[in-house]
This record gives sequence, structure tokens and C-alpha cells, in this order.
Amino acid sequence: MANTTLYGPLSGTDRVDGLLDDGAWIAALLEVELALSAVAAEQGTVDPDDADGVERAVGAVAGVDPAALAAESAEGGNPVIPLVKRLKAAAARIQPGAERAVHPGATSQDVLDTALVLLTRRAVGRIVDDLTGCADAAAGLAAAHRDTPCAARTLGQQALPTTFGAVAAGWCAGLDRARHRLAALAGELPVSYGGAAGTLAAAHPHGPAVADALADRLGLARQGVPWHTERTRIGELAGALGVAAGACAKPATDVVLLSATELGEVSEAAPGDSSSMPHKRNPAAAVTARGAAKRAPGLVATLLACAEQEFQRAAGAWHAEWETLTDLLRVTAGAAARLRVCLEGLQVHPDAMAHNLALAAGAQGAGVGHAPDLVDRVLAGRA
Amino acid sequence: MANTTLYGPLSGTDRVDGLLDDGAWIAALLEVELALSAVAAEQGTVDPDDADGVERAVGAVAGVDPAALAAESAEGGNPVIPLVKRLKAAAARIQPGAERAVHPGATSQDVLDTALVLLTRRAVGRIVDDLTGCADAAAGLAAAHRDTPCAARTLGQQALPTTFGAVAAGWCAGLDRARHRLAALAGELPVSYGGAAGTLAAAHPHGPAVADALADRLGLARQGVPWHTERTRIGELAGALGVAAGACAKPATDVVLLSATELGEVSEAAPGDSSSMPHKRNPAAAVTARGAAKRAPGLVATLLACAEQEFQRAAGAWHAEWETLTDLLRVTAGAAARLRVCLEGLQVHPDAMAHNLALAAGAQGAGVGHAPDLVDRVLAGRA
Amino acid sequence: MANTTLYGPLSGTDRVDGLLDDGAWIAALLEVELALSAVAAEQGTVDPDDADGVERAVGAVAGVDPAALAAESAEGGNPVIPLVKRLKAAAARIQPGAERAVHPGATSQDVLDTALVLLTRRAVGRIVDDLTGCADAAAGLAAAHRDTPCAARTLGQQALPTTFGAVAAGWCAGLDRARHRLAALAGELPVSYGGAAGTLAAAHPHGPAVADALADRLGLARQGVPWHTERTRIGELAGALGVAAGACAKPATDVVLLSATELGEVSEAAPGDSSSMPHKRNPAAAVTARGAAKRAPGLVATLLACAEQEFQRAAGAWHAEWETLTDLLRVTAGAAARLRVCLEGLQVHPDAMAHNLALAAGAQGAGVGHAPDLVDRVLAGRA
Amino acid sequence: MANTTLYGPLSGTDRVDGLLDDGAWIAALLEVELALSAVAAEQGTVDPDDADGVERAVGAVAGVDPAALAAESAEGGNPVIPLVKRLKAAAARIQPGAERAVHPGATSQDVLDTALVLLTRRAVGRIVDDLTGCADAAAGLAAAHRDTPCAARTLGQQALPTTFGAVAAGWCAGLDRARHRLAALAGELPVSYGGAAGTLAAAHPHGPAVADALADRLGLARQGVPWHTERTRIGELAGALGVAAGACAKPATDVVLLSATELGEVSEAAPGDSSSMPHKRNPAAAVTARGAAKRAPGLVATLLACAEQEFQRAAGAWHAEWETLTDLLRVTAGAAARLRVCLEGLQVHPDAMAHNLALAAGAQGAGVGHAPDLVDRVLAGRA
Repeated sequence: MANTTLYGPLSGTDRVDGLLDDGAWIAALLEVELALSAVAAEQGTVDPDDADGVERAVGAVAGVDPAALAAESAEGGNPVIPLVKRLKAAAARIQPGAERAVHPGATSQDVLDTALVLLTRRAVGRIVDDLTGCADAAAGLAAAHRDTPCAARTLGQQALPTTFGAVAAGWCAGLDRARHRLAALAGELPVSYGGAAGTLAAAHPHGPAVADALADRLGLARQGVPWHTERTRIGELAGALGVAAGACAKPATDVVLLSATELGEVSEAAPGDSSSMPHKRNPAAAVTARGAAKRAPGLVATLLACAEQEFQRAAGAWHAEWETLTDLLRVTAGAAARLRVCLEGLQVHPDAMAHNLALAAGAQGAGVGHAPDLVDRVLAGRA
Repeated sequence: MANTTLYGPLSGTDRVDGLLDDGAWIAALLEVELALSAVAAEQGTVDPDDADGVERAVGAVAGVDPAALAAESAEGGNPVIPLVKRLKAAAARIQPGAERAVHPGATSQDVLDTALVLLTRRAVGRIVDDLTGCADAAAGLAAAHRDTPCAARTLGQQALPTTFGAVAAGWCAGLDRARHRLAALAGELPVSYGGAAGTLAAAHPHGPAVADALADRLGLARQGVPWHTERTRIGELAGALGVAAGACAKPATDVVLLSATELGEVSEAAPGDSSSMPHKRNPAAAVTARGAAKRAPGLVATLLACAEQEFQRAAGAWHAEWETLTDLLRVTAGAAARLRVCLEGLQVHPDAMAHNLALAAGAQGAGVGHAPDLVDRVLAGRA
Repeated sequence: MANTTLYGPLSGTDRVDGLLDDGAWIAALLEVELALSAVAAEQGTVDPDDADGVERAVGAVAGVDPAALAAESAEGGNPVIPLVKRLKAAAARIQPGAERAVHPGATSQDVLDTALVLLTRRAVGRIVDDLTGCADAAAGLAAAHRDTPCAARTLGQQALPTTFGAVAAGWCAGLDRARHRLAALAGELPVSYGGAAGTLAAAHPHGPAVADALADRLGLARQGVPWHTERTRIGELAGALGVAAGACAKPATDVVLLSATELGEVSEAAPGDSSSMPHKRNPAAAVTARGAAKRAPGLVATLLACAEQEFQRAAGAWHAEWETLTDLLRVTAGAAARLRVCLEGLQVHPDAMAHNLALAAGAQGAGVGHAPDLVDRVLAGRA
Repeated sequence: MANTTLYGPLSGTDRVDGLLDDGAWIAALLEVELALSAVAAEQGTVDPDDADGVERAVGAVAGVDPAALAAESAEGGNPVIPLVKRLKAAAARIQPGAERAVHPGATSQDVLDTALVLLTRRAVGRIVDDLTGCADAAAGLAAAHRDTPCAARTLGQQALPTTFGAVAAGWCAGLDRARHRLAALAGELPVSYGGAAGTLAAAHPHGPAVADALADRLGLARQGVPWHTERTRIGELAGALGVAAGACAKPATDVVLLSATELGEVSEAAPGDSSSMPHKRNPAAAVTARGAAKRAPGLVATLLACAEQEFQRAAGAWHAEWETLTDLLRVTAGAAARLRVCLEGLQVHPDAMAHNLALAAGAQGAGVGHAPDLVDRVLAGRA
């Protein structure tokens, strides 16, 4: 996206914008470089004094103008190249020779991928927090309306009665499943450290030890083997984000439809107003949650297509991942954040539910079956 | 796809076509109906004698002309409605009253979703088998060429040396990850049994017991609560299939590029011929594996977008899943099957690798670093 | 899709299945080969007597078993290679030497791409016919209900009054735009004739003349220059099909929502029944039109991504086009065919519209503005 | 995307970032409001004195803090609502009563859609300019190397000779087709003016006149009828952007592959350096052009899926368009801008081409057929 803040609050993407912006990227890249110097010193591949120099130099680079760094990035195709140059220069200024401890044994992709993992884990943390808020709110609605009859609708038509609690329990089940998988996958994301050829050659014979120590220091999973062009983890994460967005789209869509003038079964606590129709009560949070969620599947497809990475560094498919993955984090965060606002304040109107149920002859007199039991089952599963 | 067999063998989709065709669908739908009658009898919601009548009637419906059933499906929007009509009629003919034991407490979606799960698990079984074949072949190449030097290439340029074994070990790692996740997710797919409103009302008070017994009888996971419009599982499965296709696309792309006339580092055992150039040696299996894999991401996006399912049965988003999921199974199967042919017969040319390595000044004299260790690590992880 | 007919009638894809199946493909491939022999004879690149022999031999190949041809296709990666072998053998049998006039100056892709264009134009013809039927039906509804008040709804809420005619006129405008663009683009699709290297070398010095004559004979546009890996036309066509599917999704979605039990403003002439709820009146045609339309965007993305075709014949991106384009034709056809059924029989309920309008205080007393004028404007634009 | 500038120059998206950022959005929204007040005054629906007041008030709002406006947008779901509030307040302060001339007869979507069209046309203008630069550069290469022999490659294998001019002419043909269609479609994008219900009711009886005058004043096409939920134009534009990105991906991919160490047939003027391998000469512009292009198809799919817009204002599908369309503009701009850098400086190495041609026995001695003629044909078509 262009450099806009205009759509952040309404689409909910502002929940993670600060975790994914220029400053966050630069800080994460430097965090990786700093950790790498430190563990390389521990493992004996660089001089500890030089590593100390790098540590003192990082501050001088942290405030780099993103636009300047961006301009320098164009030639080489990624921002790590000029950042390393600057860090080496700063290290050399502060302590001559310390530049030898910058970027030891690493290639640009190692630093960029590891930084991307750091940013992703932080953004996922916030997304999972909002998904939990959504699920808890749905669980609350399920408990409160365990026995509140309302119409089940199939293909848009009233079918037989259910309870609103069972409907909300279904929302909860999907949100719970999505957030658990997302959290698990994000927790498995590893460090990246392979060097230019993915052989850890420049760190030989300490390569795997450096890689593992780097992972431990950054709180990331260990990598097993380098994954420069083995992107199954990115694909799995993308899929889990897409599923999470879909788990938000489902209740958001239900809220939009149940809020219709003619149904009136639920309403948002602070429904949006209209520029031209003051009488309207728009379910603005559900609408924008749905809008954010609709943007996820196309981004997932892009990331999955980028699995086709040739040789030991892909010429384009890797580059396409960076903004796509951060966009996917943003829209999923938006869907979760806006749905949370929607569900935490949702007002339920049992009278309208009863009124509507009375419209359909086929539904009259039928029971709600196991609907309350299903609520109990979902709630018991979360206890 | 249209009613074609023409592209099956070359795209590898014929590996699962027989598991997903008209006959397989009808058999699976009847398998579900039959199991449902039986467990309903066990649970006491239908008369065991009636259920026996259904069992005897199934054979009379199994041979139904798919085209006739298809024509009858248009009015109601799914094939279960006319199939149940036929099954009821057949049951009544064979044993008057037995029609009461047909489709007890179920809705069309229960039967269709459960049948889809059955078909999916069978197709995934075959896909996983081929992915295992691919991974084993990659492991074999990794072991055999653990120490064979070749150029690592980044952004299309020679970088530093690696070994071909390390390249193949990377393929293996991705394929292993993808197949394990896919197998696990397919194994978690549950039965569907919710009845018209998702409340198991028509099976009250035995609904959950019938649902669980049905799952057990069919060898499927239990459902917890009905999931008519809670489609996170479909999304997860779609993501895993997309990841598996991508895990095939990576080695297929490498093989295509390494087979180039100017590189000549690998060649397929039975390279395709050309209609106009008899001297050409095309890596046809890798090419078609890649072609199949490229079709997956768009289908995943469709399935993820279909998570937005309103109310208790979606008006379109559910219908869009059927052929899309079977297509996604087909193209993933194709990618795996064609890659297996490619890798199991792959010929490696160490001389060409050495020749190419000598071209790049920067790579000369450099070592292969931890490349052999990475092979060992991947192979040890599979032992 | 697997070899199924089961979902054709309900998803409407059966409208074009017969135009895109094995038989249609084989017939089109042979139609191209036959035309090529004939124009090559006219241009003097093959002997006219040999071309006569080819003409007599075609019949012997037309009945080839698709499965046998498919099996032979796997090795070379496309069905043209074995088909040409069979045609040459048949020609040699019937008239020794006639095999010299088979496939003159062509490469497999020429024949396959030209056949794909033939199939596409025929399928698009039928899609455009159904889109015209949809647009005409929408225009009829617009005229009939030019002044029938109903609620305009924004974000699911009643806003101000409009007329049902204006709503239907909006459907008509989108359908008209989509069908005109689609028809125009399909009409611009050219022949493909470039030979192995895209240089028309084997037909030198008559290459362009043969190419143009082939186009003329087959009723296709001329190619300008070969387009083996210049796929903008495929992308444009894909986009137009995606837009057409979307133009169908809009009215289908409105019909589904307006048919809701609580709104009841329209109903389908022959609404689908339900396997478990005989009182339901499902808008089955609209539901399945929407289901078909939802499958288009992912397929468009696949085709657009396949524009990245390397060198003079792509190793996978071309192969991914065949079934994807035919699938896209099928689902767009399905959306149009099912929507046509929906709109041609749509029943409109002005009383329900009036009843609903009375529910919203804000809308009462407000006028319908220019709604009738908008109907007139759309209808005048089609006259 | 998050609020980043870091990836702009390297991905080329910075070419249009300034046209699509917060400031550009706010300026465009106010440009529409100002024009609307003016034409409403001309048409007699507001008092000209009041309109003058609005004109004087716009400046007071133009400098609004985007973050503040964004925060106020969340409640109503779009930024027009708070912007109009601010504009009304400013107008009332400057000239009591002038607020009556703010936003006459309009709904938020009118202003937002019209502003989106303004931004789109400006961004497309720049994209088309870069595409023209790309096509001109390709034409220059085609002319310069009309007769330079090189290998045509099919499925990665050398086929027969062509000339590098013919290869570049093919690039040119695709780029020309894509840019002409894109420019034409952007030029057809109309104003949006329908009012709350799409009936132009609040501007009755002058609605169509106001709409047309607004279009004329802003230099946009007239709308015919309101298109709030008739999104075929957005879909067509999306398709054309996707095709343009693909037309860039094709030559970018060829340049990457032809730049390979072992081929060495072309090289970029200022190839990117590497953080770990100073001997490498990366085709960084082609790589990043390809990276940008790979992001387009998924975004196109999202926009096409958003055609399913219910009723008279969609609850989510409209909201999903804003950032998606601007992202699609950005990545297409990036592909074009980076490819232009690549092609305008491309160095061609005929010696390497000759050397490679000599490798393949089958290609030796074969002629280049009509390759030079194809160059002439493409260049003549542009003259």
C-alpha cells in the first residue's frame, strides 16, 4: 500500500502498522545483525572486541532515514546491502577493525528473512490476541443466549429453529481453531542463516552452531537446514492467516445480515452513521471486518505461488514475499480487530428473533434440538 | 474441468481421477447414506428392519446414470436430493416402510460434506504416497551426491559452490514438511451431521450419538459440533494442498533450469521428444509437474474466500467448494505424480557441474562449507 | 475437474461441456492440422496431392480413443505430438508420401493454441448468448417495474426508496458491458503459427502468408507476429471472463437476499426444494449462479500469473493454461446460464416491497428520485 | 502495506506512491467536494454564494492531519463522513449558511469512488508512461539486433536459431498491447454521483445534469447511470493492470535467464552488487520488476471477487477495493518502472549468443527464418 494512514483505523490494520513500518523493519534488521555479531563472537568466528564495537555502532545506524536507505537499496535489490555498509562504516569509525564483526557469514537473505520472522511473530501475537478477544466474546454470547430461539437460515430462507447461542458457538469454534493453528505455526518459524550459497561456508566449521545460537538468542526456532528457497513455512503461515481471516469473515457476515432492517436480530453497540441518512444504523465494525477479510485470499495465493523459487536465491519470488506477507498480516489483523469491536459490543434482540421465527410456518412448533448442547460442548472444549 | 481425459496422464491428474469421478461421488454418497441408516438403527432412531431394507436397496441405486441424476439435481441445487428420492423409492419397493430409514435426521449438506471428506481422504492418501516417493527420491539423490560439487546460484548467477546433495536435501526437506502436514490435516477431517438447522433436531435426543457413531463407522474424525458454515478445516486443507504443490514446484523448477542446454547438470531418464525438433531433450515430467503446481494457488484462494458462509447454509460459497476442492486435489496430485517420475529417474552429470563451476572466477577455490553436513542432517531427520 | 458430469446441470457448466470435452479438443486439433495442410498447399510449401492425402486421412484419426492419445501424450508433454504421429501414419497408409504434408512448418504449440482459440470462441459464443438472455431479462424487469417502489439498501440497512426497475436496470447495465467486451476480445483472438522457434523458419519464405491464410480459413484474426510466449491476449480474455462472472454474481446475490423469508420481494419461478424442509423455497438458480461465479477470480489469477513465460516456449506456464482457461469458460458459462434461468422466471412481489418500505421511518415519504429516469436511460442505451 | 517507504525504490512502487498517499487521497476527496459544490450551484441546486463559501473553506480542511481524520473514520466506515463534517464546519465558520452547499445530493461513496477514479487516472498515466518507455526500449533493441542470431529456447532447451531482435520485438508487442488497453480503460472511468439510494433523489430534478457537469468539470467520463454496486469497470481496470504487469514479467524473466552466468547473453547496465559476493553481477532491475509483477494476479482476483456487491452499497466488498486497487496500481507501476531501468540500459552480447548457439548440434546451420521480418512488422505497427 501507498504510504497511507487514512484507512488504518477503519480497516483495523492500524493494530499492527506500528509493528511493520519502516522503523520496525530497520530495528529488526539491526537486531538480527547485532545478535549475529554477538553469537559469532561466542562461537569464535569473530573477535569479541570487534563484536563489542558493532554493538556500540548499532545506535548510530538505528536512526537512518528510511528514505535514504530505501534509495540506496534499489541498486542491489534489498535494504540489507546498504544497511550493512552503513553499519560497517559506523563500526569502523567507532572502533577500527570492528567492521570485521559485521554480518559474519551471512547473506542479505539471512538477515531479511530473520527480520521478517521477528516482525511476523510480533504481529501474529497481536492478531492472536484479538482473535482470542473475538472468540471470548463469541463464547460470552453463546453462554448468554444458549437457549434464545432464533431462526436457522439455509440458502437465505428460514429453515428450522436454532438458538442464537448455537450460532455464536459456531463462530467461537472457528475462531478458536484458527487462532490455535496460527499461533502454533508462528511459533515454529525459525531463524535463517545459510550464507551466500546456503552452505554456511563463510562460518565454517561453526556454521550450524552459529545458526542455532542465533535462533536461541532471538527466541526463534532453530532452522534445521537453511531455507532460502524452501518456503513451505511461509506457505503454511500464509494459509493459517487466510484461515484466520475467513474465521472472522463468517461472524462478520452473519452480523451484517442479522442487522438488516427487516431482521433486526442484532445491532452493533456504536453503529456507524451515514453522511446522507441520519436514521441509518450501520454495522460498521462488521462491515469493515468483512472488507479486511476479503483481501486475504488473493494475498495467500501470491505467497503460495512464490514457493516456486529457483536455485539458491529466487529472482523475484523472494522479493514479492516481503510486502505481501506484511499486507496479509495487516488485513488479517484488521479483520480480527474490527470483529472484536463488533462482537464485544454486540446487542442481541430476542424479541426480533421470536418475531421473525413466527413468520415461517414450517418453523413454528419445531424445537431447537441439540442447540443448547452444542453451546455446552463448545464452551466445555475451551475450559 | 470439462469432461476430458486428454490431459490426465501428462498433467498427472489421472492419479486421482478415478477417486473423484462420477462413480466415486455416487458411491461415496451412498456409502454415507448406508452408514447413516445403520448407525441410526443402532442408536434407536430408526427401525433396524427398515435399515436392513435400505441396505438391500442401495445396490439398486448404485448404478444410477450420473447424467440422469445430474439433471435431477439442478432444481434443488445438489445431487443428494434426487439420490435420496431414488433411494427411498428403491427401499419402499424392496421392503415397504424401509424408506423411513433413509436419510434419518440428515440434511443434504451432511451427506455431501461427509462424502467430500471420504473422497478427499482417499485422494490425499495417494498424493501423500507420491510425495513420499518424491521425498525418497530426493533423499536418494542427496545421499548419492552428498559431496558432488556444483554451483549455488543466486538471482540466476553463480554464487559459491555447494553440493548437489545439499540441493536435493533441500527439496527433500520441503517435500517432507508438506506431506506430513497434509496427511495430518486430512486425518483430522470429520464427519458432518447437523440436520437441517445444524441442531441435530431431527435426531433428538440421540443426535450427538448418531454423529459420533457415523464418524466411527466411516473411519472419520468426530465433528465436535456441526460445521456446515464453519469452514476452517476446508481452508486449512486447501492451504496444505497449496503448500504441497509448492513443495513440488521448487524441485521441478530447479530440474527445468539445470537441464538447460547450457547447464546440462541433470537430465530426465525419458525426456520428452518434440514434434518439430528431434534433437531436443525436454524435461517433460518436470515441466508438467510445474504446470500442475501453478494451478494450485488460485484454487486455494477460491476456497479461502468461500469461508465467508452466511447463516446455517451458504447460498453459493458452499456450492463453489465441491469442484474447486476436487480440482485442487487433482492438480496437487498431478504435481506430485509428475515430480515423482522426474526425480526417480533423474540423471545427474557431475562433469557438467564441474565444468560450470570453473566458469565463475569468484567460485573457484571456494569450499562447499557445510553442504555435506546439511545432507546428513536432513537424512538423519527422516531416519 | 475430474471426469464428472454430476455437477454440470446444477452449476450450469453443462452449457459448454460439450464444446470443451475430449471430442471437441481432438476435433479442433485435427481441424487445425487439416486447414494447415490445405493452406500450405495453396502457398506452395507442400504438394497439393499430399495435402489431399492428409484430408482423406483425417477421418481415420478423428475417432482415436482419447484415453489412448492421452497416454501417448505424457512423454512429450502435449497431445499434438502423438496426434501428428497418428495422422502421418494414416496419411502414409492412405497415400504414400502424403505424410510430408502433415504439420508443415508448425510446432505443437501452434496447433494447440489455435485449437484453444477455436474452442474458446465457440464457448464464448454460447456464454455471450446467455449473458444476452440475462441482460434482456433484466431489461424486461426494469421496464415492467420502472415505477415499482422498493427500498434501496446500503450496508444491509434500508436507506431511501428506489424502484425495482432501477435495481434491475443496474443489473442490465453491468451485464451489457461485460458481454460486449467479452465478445469483442474473443473476436480478436488470432491464429498461432510460429514454428519451433517462433520464426516461421520451416515455412520460409512463405511463413507469414501461410499464417494469414490459416487464420482466414479458420475464421480467426491474423496474428501479426507469433505469440507463443506473449500472452497478453490470454490475460485480457481471462479478465473479461472474470468480469462477466462478476456481472452475474451481482444480480444473483441480490436475488438471494431479496428472496429471504423476511424480505420476500422476489422469488424464483421454480425454486428448489429441500431434502429435509418441504416448506422451503430456495432460489436455487441464483444460488448456483453465485456458486459458479465465485470460482472465476482464482482462475483468472492463475492465467494472469502464467503470463510470465520464459524464452520461446514456457516450461509449465503454458501447460497450466489449458485446463484453467477451459475451467474459466465453464464457470462463467455456468454463472450466465443459471442466472438466465433465475431472471427469466423471476417473480416480483410489489406488495412485499411496499410492506418492507413501511418499516423504516427514514424512508417513509421520500421519493424515488430519478429511479424511473435511470431505467429509461439504460433501456434507451440498448435500443 | 504498512506505512513503509523502505521497499519503494527497489520495487519501483515509489513511482506512484506520491500519487496515492494520504495527502493525495485527501486532496482528491476535497477536489471532488469542491467541484460538486460548484456544479450544483451552476445547476441551481445550491446557492452560488454558499458554494463560494465552500470554495473558501476548502483550504482550511486541506491540511487536516490524516491520522486525525483516520481516527474519525472508524465509526462510520469511511473517511468522507468526517471530512464532510469538517468541511461543513469550516464553511459555516467562514460564511454562515455555506455549509448548505457542502456535499449536495451526494453520498460518501460518490465522493470516494470519484476520488479513486481521479487517483487511478493519474497513477495510470505514469504507469503508461513507463510502459511506453519499456516498449520503446524494447523496440530499440529489436531494431539494433534485428539480425543478431541467438538461440530460441523451448522448455529450457535450445531449439533453433532466432534473432535477439525478434525476441525483443515480442516483448515490445506485449507491452504495446497492454499499455494501449490500460490507457483506454482508464480514460473511460466515469464520475460517480448517485446519492444515498443511487437515485439521485436529493438532487432531483437536476440529478443527471449535476452528474454530467461534475464529470465534465473533473475531466472524467460521464456515468450513464450510477454504478455504486455495478463494478464491471473496476474489474476491467483490474484485468488491464494485471495484463500490464504480466507484459512486464515476460521480458524481466527473459533478462534474468539470459543474464545467467552460463548464458551471459545480456547484462544490466548497473547490475546490483551482493552483500557477500562482490564478483556477482545481479540483474537487479529485472529481478525486482519480476517481483513486483508477481504481486498483481492475487490483487486482481480480490477485485474481481469484490464484484459481488449486494443491494445499493456493499457491506465489505466496496471497502476491500480501496487499498487493493491502490496496491495493484503500485505493483504494476513498480514492474513497469523497474523494467524500464532494465531495458533502457540493457547490454547485449552477440558473442555469447553465437557461442551458445554453437553448443547445440540441432541448431547449427539452421537459419533464422522470418525473425528479421517479424522485427520489421512490429516496428512498422508502431510507426
